[in-house]
Amino acid sequence: MSQKKVSFENDYNTGCHPRLLEALEKTNALFTTGYGHDELCEEARNLIRKACLAPEAMVQFVMGGTQANIIACVAGLKPWQGVLSAKTGHINVHETGAIEAAGHKILITPSNDGIIDPDAIDQLCRAHYEDPSVEHTVQPGMIYVSLTSEMGTIFSLDTLKAFRRAANNWNLYLYVDGARLASALTSSVATITLPDLAKYTDMFTIGGTKCGALFGEAIVVTNSDLKNTFRYIIKQRGAMLAKGRLLGVQFCELFRDDLYFEIGRHENSMALMLADHFKERGYHLYMPPVSNQIFVIFDEEDEKIFKERAIFERWAVLSDQTRVCRFVTSYATTPEMVSACFSGT
Amino acid sequence: MSQKKVSFENDYNTGCHPRLLEALEKTNALFTTGYGHDELCEEARNLIRKACLAPEAMVQFVMGGTQANIIACVAGLKPWQGVLSAKTGHINVHETGAIEAAGHKILITPSNDGIIDPDAIDQLCRAHYEDPSVEHTVQPGMIYVSLTSEMGTIFSLDTLKAFRRAANNWNLYLYVDGARLASALTSSVATITLPDLAKYTDMFTIGGTKCGALFGEAIVVTNSDLKNTFRYIIKQRGAMLAKGRLLGVQFCELFRDDLYFEIGRHENSMALMLADHFKERGYHLYMPPVSNQIFVIFDEEDEKIFKERAIFERWAVLSDQTRVCRFVTSYATTPEMVSACFSGT
Amino acid sequence: MSQKKVSFENDYNTGCHPRLLEALEKTNALFTTGYGHDELCEEARNLIRKACLAPEAMVQFVMGGTQANIIACVAGLKPWQGVLSAKTGHINVHETGAIEAAGHKILITPSNDGIIDPDAIDQLCRAHYEDPSVEHTVQPGMIYVSLTSEMGTIFSLDTLKAFRRAANNWNLYLYVDGARLASALTSSVATITLPDLAKYTDMFTIGGTKCGALFGEAIVVTNSDLKNTFRYIIKQRGAMLAKGRLLGVQFCELFRDDLYFEIGRHENSMALMLADHFKERGYHLYMPPVSNQIFVIFDEEDEKIFKERAIFERWAVLSDQTRVCRFVTSYATTPEMVSACFSGT
Amino acid sequence: MSQKKVSFENDYNTGCHPRLLEALEKTNALFTTGYGHDELCEEARNLIRKACLAPEAMVQFVMGGTQANIIACVAGLKPWQGVLSAKTGHINVHETGAIEAAGHKILITPSNDGIIDPDAIDQLCRAHYEDPSVEHTVQPGMIYVSLTSEMGTIFSLDTLKAFRRAANNWNLYLYVDGARLASALTSSVATITLPDLAKYTDMFTIGGTKCGALFGEAIVVTNSDLKNTFRYIIKQRGAMLAKGRLLGVQFCELFRDDLYFEIGRHENSMALMLADHFKERGYHLYMPPVSNQIFVIFDEEDEKIFKERAIFERWAVLSDQTRVCRFVTSYATTPEMVSACFSGT
Repeated sequence: MSQKKVSFENDYNTGCHPRLLEALEKTNALFTTGYGHDELCEEARNLIRKACLAPEAMVQFVMGGTQANIIACVAGLKPWQGVLSAKTGHINVHETGAIEAAGHKILITPSNDGIIDPDAIDQLCRAHYEDPSVEHTVQPGMIYVSLTSEMGTIFSLDTLKAFRRAANNWNLYLYVDGARLASALTSSVATITLPDLAKYTDMFTIGGTKCGALFGEAIVVTNSDLKNTFRYIIKQRGAMLAKGRLLGVQFCELFRDDLYFEIGRHENSMALMLADHFKERGYHLYMPPVSNQIFVIFDEEDEKIFKERAIFERWAVLSDQTRVCRFVTSYATTPEMVSACFSGT
Repeated sequence: MSQKKVSFENDYNTGCHPRLLEALEKTNALFTTGYGHDELCEEARNLIRKACLAPEAMVQFVMGGTQANIIACVAGLKPWQGVLSAKTGHINVHETGAIEAAGHKILITPSNDGIIDPDAIDQLCRAHYEDPSVEHTVQPGMIYVSLTSEMGTIFSLDTLKAFRRAANNWNLYLYVDGARLASALTSSVATITLPDLAKYTDMFTIGGTKCGALFGEAIVVTNSDLKNTFRYIIKQRGAMLAKGRLLGVQFCELFRDDLYFEIGRHENSMALMLADHFKERGYHLYMPPVSNQIFVIFDEEDEKIFKERAIFERWAVLSDQTRVCRFVTSYATTPEMVSACFSGT
Repeated sequence: MSQKKVSFENDYNTGCHPRLLEALEKTNALFTTGYGHDELCEEARNLIRKACLAPEAMVQFVMGGTQANIIACVAGLKPWQGVLSAKTGHINVHETGAIEAAGHKILITPSNDGIIDPDAIDQLCRAHYEDPSVEHTVQPGMIYVSLTSEMGTIFSLDTLKAFRRAANNWNLYLYVDGARLASALTSSVATITLPDLAKYTDMFTIGGTKCGALFGEAIVVTNSDLKNTFRYIIKQRGAMLAKGRLLGVQFCELFRDDLYFEIGRHENSMALMLADHFKERGYHLYMPPVSNQIFVIFDEEDEKIFKERAIFERWAVLSDQTRVCRFVTSYATTPEMVSACFSGT
Repeated sequence: MSQKKVSFENDYNTGCHPRLLEALEKTNALFTTGYGHDELCEEARNLIRKACLAPEAMVQFVMGGTQANIIACVAGLKPWQGVLSAKTGHINVHETGAIEAAGHKILITPSNDGIIDPDAIDQLCRAHYEDPSVEHTVQPGMIYVSLTSEMGTIFSLDTLKAFRRAANNWNLYLYVDGARLASALTSSVATITLPDLAKYTDMFTIGGTKCGALFGEAIVVTNSDLKNTFRYIIKQRGAMLAKGRLLGVQFCELFRDDLYFEIGRHENSMALMLADHFKERGYHLYMPPVSNQIFVIFDEEDEKIFKERAIFERWAVLSDQTRVCRFVTSYATTPEMVSACFSGT
């Protein structure tokens, strides 16, 4: 009988963390009002505000990351504005043109390892405003950065502050896509905290899907110019869950006693264990292993061997013989799974 | 201590049917691939195809009804086309302009009790094509009808066939929004079946949210011209759930042994019980009680009295003294709740 | 040999007023910069500001009325907002869904003879904000009224002030589509002037196409919140003419010595002459003859007879035997053409 | 008194070619129907069909190039599709995000001197369809190439055929933006003719604005799948000129006896004269001088000197000291103007 493979395909390949499942069971029979107006959502919103040290923040829940990104762009951009993003930004490569479908150009901005270079923002904006045909080109309106980035990298508090300065200089909103925020905030090299994000950005998301929830992203909006617009947009874009309390229940559980951070640390430690195994065996990593995504360089033969034991994605083909393969850990990853990936090596 | 009120506010005020919850628990720890490519979704798709006697149908799952309606319009309409709808149609009144945000005009078509008059489709289309300035007006592209309608009414198989004929005559797609399809198909006056919908429409939805699921709508597409487009659109519109298997698990349970219809029947019987109680007490119904929504005519005093015992929505104000109030039943409604609504009367 | 018919088909069935043609010839060989940055456009802008007694107004030129309406809606509406319009409003019936294609719902507002009832604005807005599901419905964002209306009617200064009050009450922009403004301002029953429009609206257009220009609408924006956005939008929507000075040349000529008003008066007097001829012969007018559009009630035989002598549009079919036909006058209409329409009667 | 500068700023800095002006004068007083349904437009359409050897082609006129590009993309792309373009493509850099505002991503495709590499199309499309997450990325739907390109370059008939092959391979439409087509077709190195464009593309434009017209682009559509959609789109996008005959009159004149090509040749010869002057004086050209745009490399001092005699655009800054400046010729450029640019050198 064929051995079952261990899965490092992504961080959304199981259901939810047992504590969240239990909370969903406990509250299942309750009658509440819909669309997030219930007390469970309100409690979750309060827990998040508290964790962000941002009592005035508006918190809204949506089901997925693409939804959150669409809504942030609709809220933050005027029809003739575009959003600055790294070429590898999720909005640029993996959302089937969702931002363009909402009417906005993505203004590709030079980046390193998936993270926009703050100086490049200045250059791009200066070039726009110095162009005598300024109105023939798309006006920069918002900075999009993901934390962790799509390359598994993270940026520092200094970089966050540099983004803020650039945003202030050029009248841009700063939006952080935190689909994998738990992993970023608990990275061994992290210097950014939730309160930092609340302080330096205009809006950011706290991803639940990739941190133990069935689904769900919390959008935290601290810029008061943006607060009143969200619920109309959420409904218009099909992102307002009828049984909204399901989002409240899950985020309550994630933020009641720091389970969110506990899961992030677990994901990172499993990823580091994977990275160590690879390095011990002489493999090179394409990116530093600082979060829950590990990018390993394989040749054709390596890839084939590991495919027998594990499920993972081929991320890129560098040359005929050289591939970058991605291994992702989640709340459900165990040390045994990591070991199974190397059994017999 | 104040007695807790019973809720007839809507059919999405609890979690999910216990059998669905159990299925979610059982499958929680499984590792599967994402975005609906898993075996659980495939099984659910097969069960639905079977129930529809439509082995060739494409079935896709999304999270909510507004999402489904946006996606159907994006799939079925060309940029210069509009969708025919009753004035009371959900897409016209309660989706914050989602269809217009996707670029399409809603062409209001005369209707009775929430259901488009099939003859009015012919008139509207003839007027369009006979207009010498035809290209100055929006081309009719698709018929939108909801079953049950937003007024709780249902249409007959003859009417469905009339919609089909009109669609054929004028080169329109026919789309049925089945957010409350379970209640419609199991109504005591129902003449339409799932296979009829598969046969006579181009696409329709099978609503899960209002029939015992945590969330989820199945989109059934039988017109082969439309099949290849859906997954791109679903992703672009933020409606592709990362942990897609959650939709598979729930729809498997709903369709494995007709639980879907059982819940529909239960909803309808609870609604009829409510209607009978009202009628016994001399209240008039605004619409015939054929599905899980009951519309009662109250004066100011009536409304106040019932508000003490139950949660429900004021649907319309007919005059200073006359209101239409809506009571909705769900899988979780019990005879005791119905009785509690009339205790002491 | 068959006599050539006289045309009352519309007010854009010839080239341009001889004085405009002459001005185009005179300036044809000049070298100027493009896109409306030239001195001819600047002069035209100044003449319009002066005529409006609005030295601070921003004036931009576009080629056509649908362009102007799209741009006004993109400038004035947020993505979740709609524009209030009479059912007969040009944006609702004759622009192929241009406003919806820009993402916005048209909120049909009760009207009389093509003119929104100001009280109905209050009712529509109150209903929106009192709805507990407010965010499920489209937020009112702007009032669209045309002057003259699509029915050839005009509204008074008191009504304009009532629109302004409603706009202030509900935080709406007020936009007047002046495609036929010359005819409205010079109507025998006119009480509104250009300075009134500048004072009471947020933006309005001064139509050139239907008042002797080859093409061209001037958009006058007095609300300073809106001024900075226009040129980006104009370019994005394909409405920025490369040889922009053509618009400047024409509007200079129209406003240098009140030719605009002279043409308006001529159009109206020709229309009134037509109306008098019809009335003398016992025909009934469907709308009062106050501008350059005359709506006559014909039976089948009447229509046939007049079709032999003149080109005009059938506007509506009231019953099998009763039609409303539209006769439109322009700068090029002469008393001889009017007479020719009735020769032999 | 200061000498007036000669203008090489662009090819739309005057009115129109005297023959077109004369034709507009001659037809000015005619009464015709609107929106391009008149006989003058029909004659122009026939002349263009004849020049293209494409009797079945649909020809529509719009006012400007951005309009034409928007309309081509709306006609040719489905909502989840993008358009392939060089990074320097006009739709990517100088239309204020018009294509994105219509909902479509621009898929930047590797190019040389402003012209897409046909092989790169294959690579981009193969990568899309081989991606297991195919529906998470934008589907290639159309190829956009401009002739001449924004760099003043032109491609050969072989390259056009290679675009066609790529289009056939990947089910793409091929659209050529011919804003400066006259210059391209009459270039000394041209191998492409109008009939070639009609044969190998699905649609292309014949630019009038930059070839002696006041304004106007003819869209030639040879793919019969696309023909029925255009007039709805043209109206919806605000591009349907009320006095449409103005476009007919001008294109009649341009195509009645090859004036279009005569103007193209004149533009090219003036540009070549400019290029020769520059080369004689030791200046280097940034691009080969094959059309009516000349790109010269200047240092700071050069630029300053020429700015005293001529109006031209700085196109790019290569380094602190090195600029690329653009000189453009038109129907109105004379040998005297070229000489004046070098007077005293």
